[in-house]
Amino acid sequence: MGNNSTDNNFRKDPNLLVKPGSRVNLGEFNTKYTAHFKDKEDASEMLAKDIQRLSELQDMLYAMNTYSLLVVIQAMDAAGKDGTIKHVMTGVNPQGCNVTSFKQPSVEELEHDFLWRINKEMPKRGMIAIFNRSHYEEVLVTRVHPEYILGQNIPGIDSLDKIDKKFWKKRFDIINDFEMQASEAGTVIIKFFLHVSKEEQKKRFLARIEEPEKNWKFSAGDVKERQNWDKYMKAFEDAIENTSTEYAPWYIIPADRKWFMRAAVGDIIVGTLEKLNLGYPKISEKEKQELQGAKALLLNEDNN
Amino acid sequence: MGNNSTDNNFRKDPNLLVKPGSRVNLGEFNTKYTAHFKDKEDASEMLAKDIQRLSELQDMLYAMNTYSLLVVIQAMDAAGKDGTIKHVMTGVNPQGCNVTSFKQPSVEELEHDFLWRINKEMPKRGMIAIFNRSHYEEVLVTRVHPEYILGQNIPGIDSLDKIDKKFWKKRFDIINDFEMQASEAGTVIIKFFLHVSKEEQKKRFLARIEEPEKNWKFSAGDVKERQNWDKYMKAFEDAIENTSTEYAPWYIIPADRKWFMRAAVGDIIVGTLEKLNLGYPKISEKEKQELQGAKALLLNEDNN
Repeated sequence: MGNNSTDNNFRKDPNLLVKPGSRVNLGEFNTKYTAHFKDKEDASEMLAKDIQRLSELQDMLYAMNTYSLLVVIQAMDAAGKDGTIKHVMTGVNPQGCNVTSFKQPSVEELEHDFLWRINKEMPKRGMIAIFNRSHYEEVLVTRVHPEYILGQNIPGIDSLDKIDKKFWKKRFDIINDFEMQASEAGTVIIKFFLHVSKEEQKKRFLARIEEPEKNWKFSAGDVKERQNWDKYMKAFEDAIENTSTEYAPWYIIPADRKWFMRAAVGDIIVGTLEKLNLGYPKISEKEKQELQGAKALLLNEDNN
Repeated sequence: MGNNSTDNNFRKDPNLLVKPGSRVNLGEFNTKYTAHFKDKEDASEMLAKDIQRLSELQDMLYAMNTYSLLVVIQAMDAAGKDGTIKHVMTGVNPQGCNVTSFKQPSVEELEHDFLWRINKEMPKRGMIAIFNRSHYEEVLVTRVHPEYILGQNIPGIDSLDKIDKKFWKKRFDIINDFEMQASEAGTVIIKFFLHVSKEEQKKRFLARIEEPEKNWKFSAGDVKERQNWDKYMKAFEDAIENTSTEYAPWYIIPADRKWFMRAAVGDIIVGTLEKLNLGYPKISEKEKQELQGAKALLLNEDNN
């Protein structure tokens, strides 16, 4: 199998990749950025090639059974999380790919530390795990609504004033440690923030209201949450700044043009897997001899 | 969205469907049967249409969030379980589809009843679950190797002579009850036995030995297990006879022609989902009013 990489190198594009240790000002990231692509058709060839290549890489990842891949997707409502997963991952064998959508924590989940439910869904060797929302909700929605933290019964955290900068710094450290440990064990991690503009979100909300077949996707509460837009942007900036690492980098993906968002996410996933030099397992001399023994046994059946 | 069903009705084909209560003699099922199809090309249009339709049906199943689908796949080695999952399910959004491959039970799993690990992987509402092997291993591999049962520490089952016809009948009853309960809760169940001939299995084993890139899929132990072929066939016959029910029917899918096997499995899954009259959720009058309130709020933002 040849190397069919499309070599667009979005994996290293400084317009998307958040370098570890750098400051993040989301206002400086253009939500309409489309790199050198003019329109959807222009990007469609790369996406199609990447989807095909992703299917080949997944097959090798599974056969090799040494690495796993975790893709974290975070975004504001209507940025296109579900659609990105659908369009980028639908060509992948579902036997090798699990998608987990993290909702509001259950009562049982709240009785544990915030990584308990996350850890259960981490990919096995050979597998791809997609997190539609993730442990990052614990430094995003809880950052905007710190009263949720009080419901977690954390020792010493019994009033809003205890939920200070130090508290969040600790959470970032815990997340970084968790991701570093997974990385050491062979899990390759990439994290995407699908960066939609406030104006574009409004358009998409209105479309969900106007078009009856989209109504079921819409909850009136989403509009209310939109009033916290600036707080969310601050929370994203702080989280991304503090948790973009060599072993688990963040990408800020412009999301106003869905076709570019999907193409860029696909290309970064493929580019990341290419780096692993995946291949099919080779068997040992001893196993080769066993195969020959098995072959003799099979061929000998005819004489019985 | 129109009804794009291909209407081949393999779901009702008496050459495939095991009618509840009927006797099963696998010798009477032709492993080379291909219905009215002449060759792979001839069946490819149906498979392509069914894959496309399956993708639409999965989207509605997910949106509707009322039913779920469980597909159980059992077979002898090299019959094509993995390939069938890959070729039939790859067009499905992985967000709505989980594949579980059940291996030899772990020490912890053996400390529980045999359905414990199965129950954990049952599909949530709206989801498709594919079981690559399943609870049926507990009446198949254990039937051929009853000594495995002794390792399960079941009260009163402490010697091979206790593992009698009554024991297996009880297991079938337990499985039927379990599937009936899931069915009552909205899980639609279909079960496939991919029926490969002993001769075809030998060809495929030899190919796995001859072709280096297939070597990793082969374990010398598989050839040894082949010596129990007739015992396995008897175990399959008894299991299928005793557990093909209205709510969880078995299909015996001829597996010597991979292209027919995949096309038939795809068509039966689609035919089964078509019967559910899936659709997108309609919202209530009250919700419509909330949407209008949300719309006003959004449009009013401009004036702030």
